[in-house]
Amino acid sequence: MKNEMVKGVEVKGKVIGGGKLPLICTPIISKDQPTILAELTKVLDKEPDIIEWRVDFFEGIINVQEVIDVAAKIREIAVNIPILFTIRSSKEGGQPIALSEEQVVELYFAVCKSKSIDLIDIELINSIEHLSYLRKVAHENDTKLILSYHNFEFTPSSEIIRLKFKEAEQLGADIVKIAVMPNQLEDVLTILSLTLEAKNQLKIPLISIAMGEYGAITRMFGWVFGSAVTFAVGENSSAPGQVPIEDLKTVISIMQKGMRT
Amino acid sequence: MKNEMVKGVEVKGKVIGGGKLPLICTPIISKDQPTILAELTKVLDKEPDIIEWRVDFFEGIINVQEVIDVAAKIREIAVNIPILFTIRSSKEGGQPIALSEEQVVELYFAVCKSKSIDLIDIELINSIEHLSYLRKVAHENDTKLILSYHNFEFTPSSEIIRLKFKEAEQLGADIVKIAVMPNQLEDVLTILSLTLEAKNQLKIPLISIAMGEYGAITRMFGWVFGSAVTFAVGENSSAPGQVPIEDLKTVISIMQKGMRT
Repeated sequence: MKNEMVKGVEVKGKVIGGGKLPLICTPIISKDQPTILAELTKVLDKEPDIIEWRVDFFEGIINVQEVIDVAAKIREIAVNIPILFTIRSSKEGGQPIALSEEQVVELYFAVCKSKSIDLIDIELINSIEHLSYLRKVAHENDTKLILSYHNFEFTPSSEIIRLKFKEAEQLGADIVKIAVMPNQLEDVLTILSLTLEAKNQLKIPLISIAMGEYGAITRMFGWVFGSAVTFAVGENSSAPGQVPIEDLKTVISIMQKGMRT
Repeated sequence: MKNEMVKGVEVKGKVIGGGKLPLICTPIISKDQPTILAELTKVLDKEPDIIEWRVDFFEGIINVQEVIDVAAKIREIAVNIPILFTIRSSKEGGQPIALSEEQVVELYFAVCKSKSIDLIDIELINSIEHLSYLRKVAHENDTKLILSYHNFEFTPSSEIIRLKFKEAEQLGADIVKIAVMPNQLEDVLTILSLTLEAKNQLKIPLISIAMGEYGAITRMFGWVFGSAVTFAVGENSSAPGQVPIEDLKTVISIMQKGMRT
């Protein structure tokens, strides 16, 4: 298997999109500080490569200082594991939150300034002004920017998915993430095929996911086709089709052996 | 995951192509009777669904009675496990043997008559007269016929692969098998896509395999797209990219769990 990925993004010594094997990211989705930190501790035992704090699940999201405090505690406990800070909008599969788009942008700004986190995930659905502003904020604070597109209903046409990949790259993302819902197995093959194509065409690493029962397999072998990160269940699942991290590691290690025969 | 396969072929209570999960077939490739039977005993401990005796590896292949004797012993030891009898031609990746096409056909005939085996695999490369004759012989002796196409060099065009699927069906195969060599990941996706298409269009079950390092993944998840049987290593590998049966069972069970979430 040739290694065609030479555009990795380094975060705390781990390279996203830099090697053959995917990095495994595990979400933290608890709702208050004690349960978040307890979940984090359990998840860290399972040795994920990246921790994603899904802040839309956090009850204290309306209080900027509270968010900053929790981020600092997560940083302290996670030590050298890269931390991805994500506020997923309810439009794209996240929890309903009481913040406007402007307040969400300000929260991303504050957390980047706090230097407690390593990556932020922001949806392409946001205004170009906000995306450009956050790219600047992220990069000024040594934070990597993931621009993402989620569709929990269906898999858009290949042309639309290609546009999302390109849009993220043009907007200066360090990494692009696409997660869509396949409604048939053909959609899964479409995603894998577009992943392979984008891997060869984009200058930045990509993450691609087909969600749900049809898509579960992409979480296990999407990396073969070029997806740089796969999301796995540590303690709690944050999206349909996620596989327990232990199982994912087993499958990846078997596949890696198989591909060497 | 919907179960769209309703055209299973039953052999000794096992249904090929009848369910969601693939059957696992393990090859026996030793060269003389004692090592064949020893390999068989070890392989049976690993509980494959089907045993394939690759007769082109057998040194006694030129002696019909010797072949019949070994087949009878395999039957005795394997008890109720379906036995697939295969003479793979050197043109399609098998061992060089000292038999003409006519002698090969007569050997298939003799072993069908012996009733020691359950399935035979014959290549589509043989003459139509031979294929028709062996279909008749197989069916008169309650033996299922797999018509197969192998390409150890490359993956032919989609049109050619579609023709092979149809040809096998038209020639009265009970099952069709296609095994090709991918030279890039796109070929792997082509095979999976054609598998999905053929599963919906053919009236018979199909087996599809992409071989080698790129294709190893199809041995693990090709069943999701409609391949009814996957070949795994028991003691010895018979083709590039085969995975140990223990690993294959682990991956299938994890994938099955993932697809239920």
